[in-house]
Amino acid sequence: MAVQKTFRIGVIGASGYTGADVVRLAAVHPHMEIAALAARAHAGKPMGAVFPHLGLAALPDVVDVEAVDWSGLDAVFCGLPHGTAHEIISTLPESLKVVDMSADFRLRDPAVYAEWYGGPHGAADLLETAVYGLTEHYRAQIAPARLVACPGCYPTAVLLALLPLVKAGLIDASDIVIDAKSGVSGAGRGAKQGTLFSEVGEGLAPYGVAQHRHAPEIEQEISRAAGAPVVVNFTPHLVPMSRGELVTCYVRLQGKARAGELREALSAAYTDSPFVRVAVPDALPATQHVRGSNYCLVGAYDDRIEGRAIVISALDNLVKGSAGQAIQNFNLMAGLPETTGLEQLPLFP
Amino acid sequence: MAVQKTFRIGVIGASGYTGADVVRLAAVHPHMEIAALAARAHAGKPMGAVFPHLGLAALPDVVDVEAVDWSGLDAVFCGLPHGTAHEIISTLPESLKVVDMSADFRLRDPAVYAEWYGGPHGAADLLETAVYGLTEHYRAQIAPARLVACPGCYPTAVLLALLPLVKAGLIDASDIVIDAKSGVSGAGRGAKQGTLFSEVGEGLAPYGVAQHRHAPEIEQEISRAAGAPVVVNFTPHLVPMSRGELVTCYVRLQGKARAGELREALSAAYTDSPFVRVAVPDALPATQHVRGSNYCLVGAYDDRIEGRAIVISALDNLVKGSAGQAIQNFNLMAGLPETTGLEQLPLFP
Amino acid sequence: MAVQKTFRIGVIGASGYTGADVVRLAAVHPHMEIAALAARAHAGKPMGAVFPHLGLAALPDVVDVEAVDWSGLDAVFCGLPHGTAHEIISTLPESLKVVDMSADFRLRDPAVYAEWYGGPHGAADLLETAVYGLTEHYRAQIAPARLVACPGCYPTAVLLALLPLVKAGLIDASDIVIDAKSGVSGAGRGAKQGTLFSEVGEGLAPYGVAQHRHAPEIEQEISRAAGAPVVVNFTPHLVPMSRGELVTCYVRLQGKARAGELREALSAAYTDSPFVRVAVPDALPATQHVRGSNYCLVGAYDDRIEGRAIVISALDNLVKGSAGQAIQNFNLMAGLPETTGLEQLPLFP
Amino acid sequence: MAVQKTFRIGVIGASGYTGADVVRLAAVHPHMEIAALAARAHAGKPMGAVFPHLGLAALPDVVDVEAVDWSGLDAVFCGLPHGTAHEIISTLPESLKVVDMSADFRLRDPAVYAEWYGGPHGAADLLETAVYGLTEHYRAQIAPARLVACPGCYPTAVLLALLPLVKAGLIDASDIVIDAKSGVSGAGRGAKQGTLFSEVGEGLAPYGVAQHRHAPEIEQEISRAAGAPVVVNFTPHLVPMSRGELVTCYVRLQGKARAGELREALSAAYTDSPFVRVAVPDALPATQHVRGSNYCLVGAYDDRIEGRAIVISALDNLVKGSAGQAIQNFNLMAGLPETTGLEQLPLFP
Repeated sequence: MAVQKTFRIGVIGASGYTGADVVRLAAVHPHMEIAALAARAHAGKPMGAVFPHLGLAALPDVVDVEAVDWSGLDAVFCGLPHGTAHEIISTLPESLKVVDMSADFRLRDPAVYAEWYGGPHGAADLLETAVYGLTEHYRAQIAPARLVACPGCYPTAVLLALLPLVKAGLIDASDIVIDAKSGVSGAGRGAKQGTLFSEVGEGLAPYGVAQHRHAPEIEQEISRAAGAPVVVNFTPHLVPMSRGELVTCYVRLQGKARAGELREALSAAYTDSPFVRVAVPDALPATQHVRGSNYCLVGAYDDRIEGRAIVISALDNLVKGSAGQAIQNFNLMAGLPETTGLEQLPLFP
Repeated sequence: MAVQKTFRIGVIGASGYTGADVVRLAAVHPHMEIAALAARAHAGKPMGAVFPHLGLAALPDVVDVEAVDWSGLDAVFCGLPHGTAHEIISTLPESLKVVDMSADFRLRDPAVYAEWYGGPHGAADLLETAVYGLTEHYRAQIAPARLVACPGCYPTAVLLALLPLVKAGLIDASDIVIDAKSGVSGAGRGAKQGTLFSEVGEGLAPYGVAQHRHAPEIEQEISRAAGAPVVVNFTPHLVPMSRGELVTCYVRLQGKARAGELREALSAAYTDSPFVRVAVPDALPATQHVRGSNYCLVGAYDDRIEGRAIVISALDNLVKGSAGQAIQNFNLMAGLPETTGLEQLPLFP
Repeated sequence: MAVQKTFRIGVIGASGYTGADVVRLAAVHPHMEIAALAARAHAGKPMGAVFPHLGLAALPDVVDVEAVDWSGLDAVFCGLPHGTAHEIISTLPESLKVVDMSADFRLRDPAVYAEWYGGPHGAADLLETAVYGLTEHYRAQIAPARLVACPGCYPTAVLLALLPLVKAGLIDASDIVIDAKSGVSGAGRGAKQGTLFSEVGEGLAPYGVAQHRHAPEIEQEISRAAGAPVVVNFTPHLVPMSRGELVTCYVRLQGKARAGELREALSAAYTDSPFVRVAVPDALPATQHVRGSNYCLVGAYDDRIEGRAIVISALDNLVKGSAGQAIQNFNLMAGLPETTGLEQLPLFP
Repeated sequence: MAVQKTFRIGVIGASGYTGADVVRLAAVHPHMEIAALAARAHAGKPMGAVFPHLGLAALPDVVDVEAVDWSGLDAVFCGLPHGTAHEIISTLPESLKVVDMSADFRLRDPAVYAEWYGGPHGAADLLETAVYGLTEHYRAQIAPARLVACPGCYPTAVLLALLPLVKAGLIDASDIVIDAKSGVSGAGRGAKQGTLFSEVGEGLAPYGVAQHRHAPEIEQEISRAAGAPVVVNFTPHLVPMSRGELVTCYVRLQGKARAGELREALSAAYTDSPFVRVAVPDALPATQHVRGSNYCLVGAYDDRIEGRAIVISALDNLVKGSAGQAIQNFNLMAGLPETTGLEQLPLFP
């Protein structure tokens, strides 16, 4: 793709929260034109009937995925559920760039996928070609890729905080505890009793303890950085807010490292990464300070226990944790500056 | 001011929510440069120490208002509390355009100001020159103005919904009941027990019943449109959300009018107003569908009581209800397209 | 039923929020024993698997309604959806007292029921015997009744505020505007996209404008009090909180009445009603101040418009608006003091 | 104190959230009469003017603490801030039983107090006589005590979960990571910018990382149980809810222990403790399931990392974490059954 042209994009799975957030961002992206919106259950409706806030933009009506004319498109963003995503993506013309936000192409090893997602991967050949879309760590692979698998929201928060520390040998990869907290939008827009306002409002609940599907994804990348297989503790909690994700990582330091050195390593790693910011020692990342934006805040702090530290990372699960990172990846694939269309500051309060 | 240049602006009262939202929007406005941020209590701090979410932008440090070099500025946005605002604005050089978001220049009659704000207006001469900044209804006056007084958040929501109906003679201006609901950010960032999370969370409370200062402002404009003095019912309620405002107006129809004619009158009034949208009959405005944006949704519906209708209006109190409308007005004053820098779609969920 | 014995009760529809709140209150009621819990979809489960907070009490397992042995029970509370409720209640032995919280027996006129609930009433004969369970206004009828139909949550709030005023001839029954606001639990525990946390959080939305089923119920009782058919405006809104309901009623005063006289009439009406409290002139009812309790706060205030007033009423929709009032009615039916088991103060914050 | 009489109690610091929750519970306690309410800033006001929800009970007016006639009281609950609490308590007649909810008498070592609370303890002699009021672990000492220091909310949650495991030698006391999450009411009712609705709503923020004053309190008790000085990681987070606290403890198992053995140890420890419940393996403690009640839910789960486990504890910070535990302790001191007046089930939703 050449710079400066307008890219015609399609969004598959436009009726979910991640699909909708791609639309929200793409609609004001200076080099994108939304040419197709697909969502089976809503085919035939104007987008404003599916998401009233998107009714304010001029958008094509929603169609069934089978009705999309792929020939006119440059790229497709896929916000389908896992399993469904790879089925559809397998059928897309080779000429289309694909930015997938599902879980289908994140795990490099089909056996691991099969173990965690309840069955064999249906497109193992495609999987081999997919690039893991953690932008700040895989730019060189993402730019020329045809298929990019955007990381899960939790892995994005965790890996941006920990990968530079593991790579620098500052922390013990075998002793990582990750206490994760997410807003409710991460559970999707499907009608479920468990995410009703009255069930989760005014409450805080752990879920998926030691069983969450983002654990193997985190382990995959930490293991690569560590050069050895790693198992992590990963314990998510549901917070009564719609957007936002914060991970508090409890790590054991290697040698004589202290939090200050962790901060230095993070700063060095992200010097040229405008969306990852390292907090000063007396500031703490919080989700409300990145809400609605593509920024990720990371910070490192000394623990009371000698030889341990606390590394914290905050982002908006639907933006940097999904749709925003997807567009950031698209920018790279399209030869555009990485920040194009993503410069909005967080919405606070 | 000439089109296409970059305007150097200052924000006075940068430590409040409306000041901060001007900064959020101005920082990514293609024709603005934020050259000065003033807030007495925080002088000397980086903006990120006052509002962490704004620490992500490159901004000047906060200074005391006395330390601002006005000569280098093209325009000033003022987010000070009423009373303080006109004191400062009185001292500004004539060459500066001023967009005031306080209540100081909204009421045209100094006697009404004195009655509602507890004392005589301290800058009655300036008041005479101020233009009421309800953009969609005063464009011609705003464009050449030096001082624009942006309406209150509630009056913006109410007047956008009702002015066209009063002007068209479709409703009885003497029988208007306005039930208003606002998020908590409207109460400002000052530390008050009444707006603590634990006080207002999981609750709904009326306040200022028949005594709210936005009532005379609404009456001023409805009276002008009606050509006769009007008193309205205005009853605000505090909703456990940070942003958003919705007004439900109960009106008596004139002659044989029905809700359909109200919708037609609204649509006709806002044909060339991109930020005001008239809901289709089976859709209802809701604050979450305009959150973070400069849009206002209005709708009209038949009542069960013969001869009455319900007119509903929703906006984000900090954007269209304050900072966004301020920038919209600035765009007009600067000769820029009205929508410049305000195209972001709402943040949902 | 004789005083002081322990009454064995059953709860049908124990998997809904109103059923669960009956259980919560009944479990600590000094004269109740929960002998049966029925909920088709959860038959066979311990109650703690349906509602974890009720797992803290010693309760019978949930069974299918067909499996309940009615012979051992004194009374039944029914929290089923409308339509289903009367089908089941029709089959219950005559000896059982029934406190119904559904909508099935609230409307005295089967034709009105048919119009609003989409079909003919399936138990019109039973309907004739049902007593409308607005406790404070129908004590004499409730005490000896076999079947009591507890009012809807909104009608309870509205009628407690307005009935004494209509009866006293202080307000014009033909010009009543009711702006109503409710927490999300009123929409029930069924999985619906519209009540997901991410859909309603941080937002305020009207719904069912001029079409809500509580309108005819309100009109039925206001009409009886007024001695003439009355149509009211009733406009509900969904508030991002789980519990709580507040109605703001806009009324036209008769003769020279002022808000002070409304307060006097309310105080006189509720002298012997411990659960309805009239707010002093400088206090405003708010839902957070009755949360979790059986209290209803009412207040009356002068409007800015001459000859009009504002009457406000707040309650917890699941307690005084449903399960609490149901138990209050049961107490009367059982010859117990009305307040038995309902003395808990509100939970604030 | 003899059983079955009515105890006349006073509440000092009645204008704070913990004081108010003592009043809420005491007002319906069958053996308590609230005889005095003291709060300097509100002296002379009815309690309903300080806390509207308490205006529903018949209570004495608020007075200055100097105006209380101690001679007529049996016991005092103290909800004052640390520092102020011991000053007042030092002046109380010896005959009065004192249940203190401040931090002043929790730390047994005055040197530790001085280190964490910024100065020497002002009543070190009294401190020697104080009993640490973690009910389930110190019943024998609490019953005869004159002065009981109720634990902090976080320490209550943590210690109920971990003490039995440390005592049983099942976990390594030197490797404990405690990720804690609290609702906003824990920060008190004082007007602070940091706890405004708009600051903390829709957000999740860590605070006091490695510096929170509850850390030394937790360490004091874990160290006693372990028989050796222990330092723990304790990292609190602020959750957008008013009530509720959940701690997720990451522990290293001793020997071949697994989560099942932790659950067994917890169950054994709390067999006769009605307010502490051990969750079954497939259930997870959540704050919304104990809201407003005196219950604490604990659970233990195997980690993905070999040899580690996750122990979770949830309670209502104002009830079991403060006022409820205070009344539970009072019950013991008064010779009443421990559960008296505390039987209410949680308020859900």
